[in-house]
Amino acid sequence: MQIQYLLELTGTGLFAISGAIAANKKSKPDWFGVTFIGFITSIGGGSIRDILLGSYPLSWVADEKRIYVIIAGIVFTSLFFNVLLRLRKTLFIFDSLGIAMFTILGTEKALAYHVAPFIAAIMGMFSAIMGGVMRDVLTNEIPVIFRKEIYASACLAGALVYLALNTMDLSRNMCLLVSVSVIFGIRVVAVKYRLSLPQFKREKVPETDDGG
Amino acid sequence: MQIQYLLELTGTGLFAISGAIAANKKSKPDWFGVTFIGFITSIGGGSIRDILLGSYPLSWVADEKRIYVIIAGIVFTSLFFNVLLRLRKTLFIFDSLGIAMFTILGTEKALAYHVAPFIAAIMGMFSAIMGGVMRDVLTNEIPVIFRKEIYASACLAGALVYLALNTMDLSRNMCLLVSVSVIFGIRVVAVKYRLSLPQFKREKVPETDDGG
Amino acid sequence: MQIQYLLELTGTGLFAISGAIAANKKSKPDWFGVTFIGFITSIGGGSIRDILLGSYPLSWVADEKRIYVIIAGIVFTSLFFNVLLRLRKTLFIFDSLGIAMFTILGTEKALAYHVAPFIAAIMGMFSAIMGGVMRDVLTNEIPVIFRKEIYASACLAGALVYLALNTMDLSRNMCLLVSVSVIFGIRVVAVKYRLSLPQFKREKVPETDDGG
Repeated sequence: MQIQYLLELTGTGLFAISGAIAANKKSKPDWFGVTFIGFITSIGGGSIRDILLGSYPLSWVADEKRIYVIIAGIVFTSLFFNVLLRLRKTLFIFDSLGIAMFTILGTEKALAYHVAPFIAAIMGMFSAIMGGVMRDVLTNEIPVIFRKEIYASACLAGALVYLALNTMDLSRNMCLLVSVSVIFGIRVVAVKYRLSLPQFKREKVPETDDGG
Repeated sequence: MQIQYLLELTGTGLFAISGAIAANKKSKPDWFGVTFIGFITSIGGGSIRDILLGSYPLSWVADEKRIYVIIAGIVFTSLFFNVLLRLRKTLFIFDSLGIAMFTILGTEKALAYHVAPFIAAIMGMFSAIMGGVMRDVLTNEIPVIFRKEIYASACLAGALVYLALNTMDLSRNMCLLVSVSVIFGIRVVAVKYRLSLPQFKREKVPETDDGG
Repeated sequence: MQIQYLLELTGTGLFAISGAIAANKKSKPDWFGVTFIGFITSIGGGSIRDILLGSYPLSWVADEKRIYVIIAGIVFTSLFFNVLLRLRKTLFIFDSLGIAMFTILGTEKALAYHVAPFIAAIMGMFSAIMGGVMRDVLTNEIPVIFRKEIYASACLAGALVYLALNTMDLSRNMCLLVSVSVIFGIRVVAVKYRLSLPQFKREKVPETDDGG
């Protein structure tokens, strides 16, 4: 439990960093704006999961340490901004690990509320992606999950793997390790080879007929 | 109750279809994006109503069948996409019926939480429109309810009719039938004759004065 | 308590007025759109605070008078639109007072839920700013809190002042008076002298190298 808590705090800080970097690209926000976006990116997904589950108190409301970690992440981003920009690839690795971990921990939390397994997988995915969705909505962009390489679907796939493993006679650590690796692996491969899901439907250009 | 549940499931599927078609118009989303938007369009309004009421568990969290219906709706949309596009008018009829039904069922649910009648009407309207509002926000559009023909106001009017009938000595079925018809009727007439509510205020162009 | 309730109702109406004026600037919304945006601007912040705290029922759900005040505010805006536009400075004063008051009352409410002081300050700030954030998201703008003069940070500062005073041996009225004045003062000075927080980071323009 102690290790899980430390991992969660680390993930919270990393999400704040990536949120702050993403926020800063847009329209020169001030310190407050960047901190606010970093905060939402970091705690948004877990908050949405908890509100949908009716799981009160929300984890950051009950534990102000998460806020301090977020603030530390923002200050760190400010101090080492150009270093962080150069470490883009390393950051991507940590971000992918964070997303993978948040998905599976979110799925576990939802299961504890006795929802159906597939609902738990959705909750796990929401934990990981909804912070980013809110960040994109607030900065007036179309959410990245609709545009980019396989991302949310990797989370969902990993959550389903976790649920499958969970029905077998395996230790929790083994289930966690495998399913986190699945998400991380899909994500890294997808970005490296620019894999994306097939487009849904191409609307046929209507036949031109006069006056139409 | 059985019939109501079947109607709700049908409405959920129809909302997913209309959400998927709307999502697909924007920036060529992939399968995941379309499914996600269809999902939000379909369960967003009811979720907002339930969160505002504090009514837990949310209906889709407690009942995964709604999720399967949504997925079926998306797959159906994919298989019969061009057919659906041609059936635009038929879809509009079903969509209007769905909106009308969700409004009144949402109003009833809110009344069960002993809120004031007018609050219940707002909750009913939210059930019907908020999924579409969230869809529009996520695809970076100004919500359709602010731009188009009488829509949300038809829901509110129908909910108020329901509340009025509810104070009389009528059967529940009669109240439902009349108020759903009111919403459906207003909506169809509004679209057919392109009726819209009056614009709020035209800001006067300020008098031009040099240097202004 | 009576006075506080009257102040809250007044603030609710004022927020609806400022929301309606802001909404009307965008794309000629109809009466419904303006009322909807006024409503969200007015009750959005408090609703987000209450949902995050799990404080049910939400105040406007439990008390329909707030809705009537909002509607009155919208009608008032319609009747006296051009007068209100000319009274921009007076409105700004009232808006700033409203924001200050909502922040501190929100902070107090959060404290009653036994959250940590810093969390309470965040909740207070959310009460004051989140309605405006939702208004901006719905009208497809980048939230004003990321762009303009010191605003949300003034709320946060005032909430922290309140918390500091609260640990001392002062009456509640004194704590309220001082902290509301702090927010109001910062806001007025910031707008008068166009003060803003420092920009977070300027991304270095990358060195141009051929083929980059």
